[in-house]
Order: sequence, then structure tokens, then C-alpha cells
Amino acid sequence: MSLLVIGSLALDTIETPFGKAERTLGGSATFISTAASYFTDSVRLVGIVGYDFPESEIEFLKSKKIDISGLEISESKKTFHWHGKYDFDLNTRESLVTELNAFETFDPVISEKFRNSDYVCLGNLHPLIQQKVVKQINNPKLIMCDTMNFWIEGAYDNLLEVLKLVKLLVINDSEARELSKEFNLVAAAKKIMSMGPEIVIVKKGEHGALLITKDIIFSAPAFPLEKVFDPTGAGDTFAGGMMGWLAKTDDISEKNLKLAVIYGSAMASLAVEKFSLDGIRDLSQEKIMKRFIEFKKLTHFEEVNM
Amino acid sequence: MSLLVIGSLALDTIETPFGKAERTLGGSATFISTAASYFTDSVRLVGIVGYDFPESEIEFLKSKKIDISGLEISESKKTFHWHGKYDFDLNTRESLVTELNAFETFDPVISEKFRNSDYVCLGNLHPLIQQKVVKQINNPKLIMCDTMNFWIEGAYDNLLEVLKLVKLLVINDSEARELSKEFNLVAAAKKIMSMGPEIVIVKKGEHGALLITKDIIFSAPAFPLEKVFDPTGAGDTFAGGMMGWLAKTDDISEKNLKLAVIYGSAMASLAVEKFSLDGIRDLSQEKIMKRFIEFKKLTHFEEVNM
Repeated sequence: MSLLVIGSLALDTIETPFGKAERTLGGSATFISTAASYFTDSVRLVGIVGYDFPESEIEFLKSKKIDISGLEISESKKTFHWHGKYDFDLNTRESLVTELNAFETFDPVISEKFRNSDYVCLGNLHPLIQQKVVKQINNPKLIMCDTMNFWIEGAYDNLLEVLKLVKLLVINDSEARELSKEFNLVAAAKKIMSMGPEIVIVKKGEHGALLITKDIIFSAPAFPLEKVFDPTGAGDTFAGGMMGWLAKTDDISEKNLKLAVIYGSAMASLAVEKFSLDGIRDLSQEKIMKRFIEFKKLTHFEEVNM
Repeated sequence: MSLLVIGSLALDTIETPFGKAERTLGGSATFISTAASYFTDSVRLVGIVGYDFPESEIEFLKSKKIDISGLEISESKKTFHWHGKYDFDLNTRESLVTELNAFETFDPVISEKFRNSDYVCLGNLHPLIQQKVVKQINNPKLIMCDTMNFWIEGAYDNLLEVLKLVKLLVINDSEARELSKEFNLVAAAKKIMSMGPEIVIVKKGEHGALLITKDIIFSAPAFPLEKVFDPTGAGDTFAGGMMGWLAKTDDISEKNLKLAVIYGSAMASLAVEKFSLDGIRDLSQEKIMKRFIEFKKLTHFEEVNM
């Protein structure tokens, strides 16, 4: 099944306690589509970059069989540039520079071909842009949406409109609390479900993720890595792996949603082991499958009566 | 197999956003032995209370078939009294009053019968007292020990001596970080294993627990409750359920340690649904088993290849 990904492409400068990468490939759409590309050859990317975007990275996206016919290249502006610095514990980060550049005027027009996509990932964008994209798609099977505190605080009413249009919201724990005004994450997810999405996935960073529908709660741990190198893009990689699995299997049953969450978690755990996109640039199916099995060992136990 | 429990018995005054309980039964040994009593009839309690300790609570402990021949009742002092108040999110708490009373001079002498216990739980006590207890026990199969930041900061060298004597340390995440001086919890657990314990269990509160040995890592979630009423005693209830299961099955294989962690987590999740000890005062095996199965549904997924 085809998977449409809309979001940012960026050149990131990242500082962690373990090193620094300058103007390295980043952005939500980059992480989502790269992660998804390991599951399906039908990833379609819509985004914008500037005239300074390296040709080698265009080639990289093509090498992942990602359809980049929806990638606009601005001739007058540079690529979105974000410079972030992580604290020693990697849990807090400071944005030192945010230059939107070409991304500032991003106004995605979805091509005729892309309008018939089955699965859709709305990366973290202004809710008005997310809405505009949704209205261009014909009958998708599943729309997933991400958001962030910036939109919850600055475009709350627009975000509520988007939530009515999407089946699956992926959101981090603090944002789920902020959006719902509930501290307890189960209560928060239920409140968010009353706003529209039938499925809510709460990302808890190093504590894993919760999948919540009206019938089930499923808890996936984060992979207990001894060394996390760079958490940039982990949430988008999670979403990409998850949506890639759903598009590949074309099955949104609760049983398969659990698998999607585990594949997403596996991809995210591989991403944070290296800087920026490096952890998922060149993976084998064997390596992903090995991590999947490690998740099983990490969580499964026998059923034994008292 | 017999299970010896040494720790505090207290009368707690607890304030949460949902209510207040005054001078209600608490203390580490109370929670540990009550939780363990659902798994084995061979729980042996060593502790001290004051002349004000209610006769009805003595009867309660007896009703759980807990051997209280090691419970000292001071004729001159009152029972340990702790008064704590939880913040609205239940994650932080303030100790308003700590009156050690009879507990201040607690100097456990283990009876001849109790010295032959197979499994031993050292509740959170001064490491010198923990050491003194260990030296009185003949050839136990497994000693579990708990501790807290107060001893890590105030009796570090004594604590290091205890760690050399115990096979299993149960510790919360912030204390594991403080003890090991490692932020990453896997790295922290490995460092702690180099100090003595072969098995480290890191309690992460609402994020569950990690079981770490030289060969495996196992991650158990906390049960995603929509309403947590009172977290007091959750960690001790976890330890009691876990050690009760190990004593019942007399099996410390890694496979069975995983089950022990799940039974401990199930007991802790039942405990926090009510005030103080109320959540585990009167449970049926059916209710515990039902929660165990819910943990399986919460975490298990099929193995499906990419």
C-alpha cells in the first residue's frame, strides 16, 4: 500500500555530550520516510528544501526507493536549518538556531497520483497545513498525525479541527498532558480520543510508548540501550517504522497495531545508537528483525498460575 | 520455602489529592509481608512496634498466616509514625513528620527458627542493621535488599558492605543513578552488579521495572491505571509479591525471575488503587491472577517476520 509522508526536511546542527554534527540531514519527513522505506517501496514524500540541499542526499532518498516527485526545491531560499544542543542526560535540549528558510512558505499541493495514497503521515506541521493536506487526499485508509507543544499553545483551535480528521494521533507524554489537561496518561489518551482520533499512541521517550484504543492498552518499552548517542528524530523514526509496517501489511487491527508499535520502537532504538539519521541510513532487514526479536525477549514471559 | 522479612512497621498519616488517612498501618515490612502472604504461608516477620500499635492490626497480620513471633512490642515507646503529603501528580511527596519512636532502637535478633530461612527480604533499613541480620542467617538461598538515598548519602561505605552480601538488590531509578554515579539505567545496573548483587531490579514507578542480570534484561511496565489513589508502599508491595513468588516456587532461574517481577508488578498495581495497605488487605488469588493476565495482554505480541 502507498504511504504519503508530509513534513520537514532540514539540515541540522546537533550537539550532544558525545559529539557534534554540522548541517546533517534531518527533518520529520526525512526520518519518517527513511524509516518507512525499510517496510515498503511505496513511500511518497512531500516537502520543500532550499538550493543548498546536497545532491548526495537527494540520491540517498532515491536509493531508499522513496518517490520524491513531491519534493520542491526552492531556488531562492536555503534549506530549513535547526541547531540544537542536548543536555548531558539527553532528556532536555535547547534550540540554539531555528531558520525556517524555504520551509517558512511550505504550502503543499498534492499531485493527482499522491492524492490516492492509502496511508498518510502528517509530520509535525502547522495544523492549518495539516488540514489543507487532508482535504486533498481521496479516501485514505488511515491518516496519522503528529503535533507539538508549539501548536497546542499557538494554534489550539486549528489543531482540534485536525484531530476530527485523523484516525491516529502520535504524541509525546508531556504534549498529551498539555493537550488533554489530564496528568494521567490513560485519562489523557481517552480525552484525546473524544476529540477525534480512534487510536492514540503516547511516546514516552526512554520509557517507551503506550498504544490506546477504546478496547485495548498496549505498552511497549524503549529498548534499554547502554549508550544513547543522539535522540534527534527518534519520535519520527518510531512513526515511520510504525506506518511503514501498517502500509506494508494493510491491516489496522489491534493485533497488528501492536506489531507496528514494536517495529516503530525497534527502528527508533536503532536510530538513537548513532548521530542524526546515521543509525537508519543503511540497515538490513536482518538487523531490524533481530531487534524485533530482542523486544520480544525483553517483554515476554510465560503464563503460570499462582 | 520460608521467607524472612525484616523492616519497619509504622502508623502512617497520608495525604494525597484524593483524601487523607490518619495513623493507618504502614511500614516496609508490613507491605512486604502482606504482599508475600498471598503466595506462601511461610512468611516470617521481624520488626518492632510501640505500645499504641492496634491489637486489630496484630490480628490482621495473623490472619494472613504471617509468623509474628519476631515482632517486638515496646512497652515504653510509640510506634514509628510517618506523615507524608503527595503532590497533585503523586510523583513527589513531602515528609511532614518522621517520628521513629520504638523503631529508633530497632536491633533485630533473629530467633533460632528464623535463622534457617530460605529467602530473606531486607527492607529499607540502616545498612549496619541489614549487615547484622545477614550475619545471623544460616545459608539462605537468596537475600534481597532494598535501600534509599538517605543511606547512599549517609552510610555509603556500610551500604557497599551489604551489597557484597546480597544476591538481589531492588532499588528505584534515582537511587540506582545516585549509587552508581551513572545516568543510564542499564549502565547503572551493571555498575551495581560489580559491587556484589548478581541481580538488580530497578523500580521506575509509573514506568515499571527493569530486571537485569549478567545475561538478560527484562522490562515490565507499570499497569496503566487511570486513577492512582495512593502510591505509598508500592515499591515494598512489589518486592513482597516478587519474593513471595520466588519463595513459593523456590526457583531463581531467569525465566522465573521474570514471572516474579510480573507478580510483584501486579501486586503493586493493586496496592495503589486504594489508600495505604487497603488495596492488598483482602485480595483473592483470582483477582491477582486476573491482573497477571492483564499484564500479559498489555505486553505480549505475536512474532511476525518483516
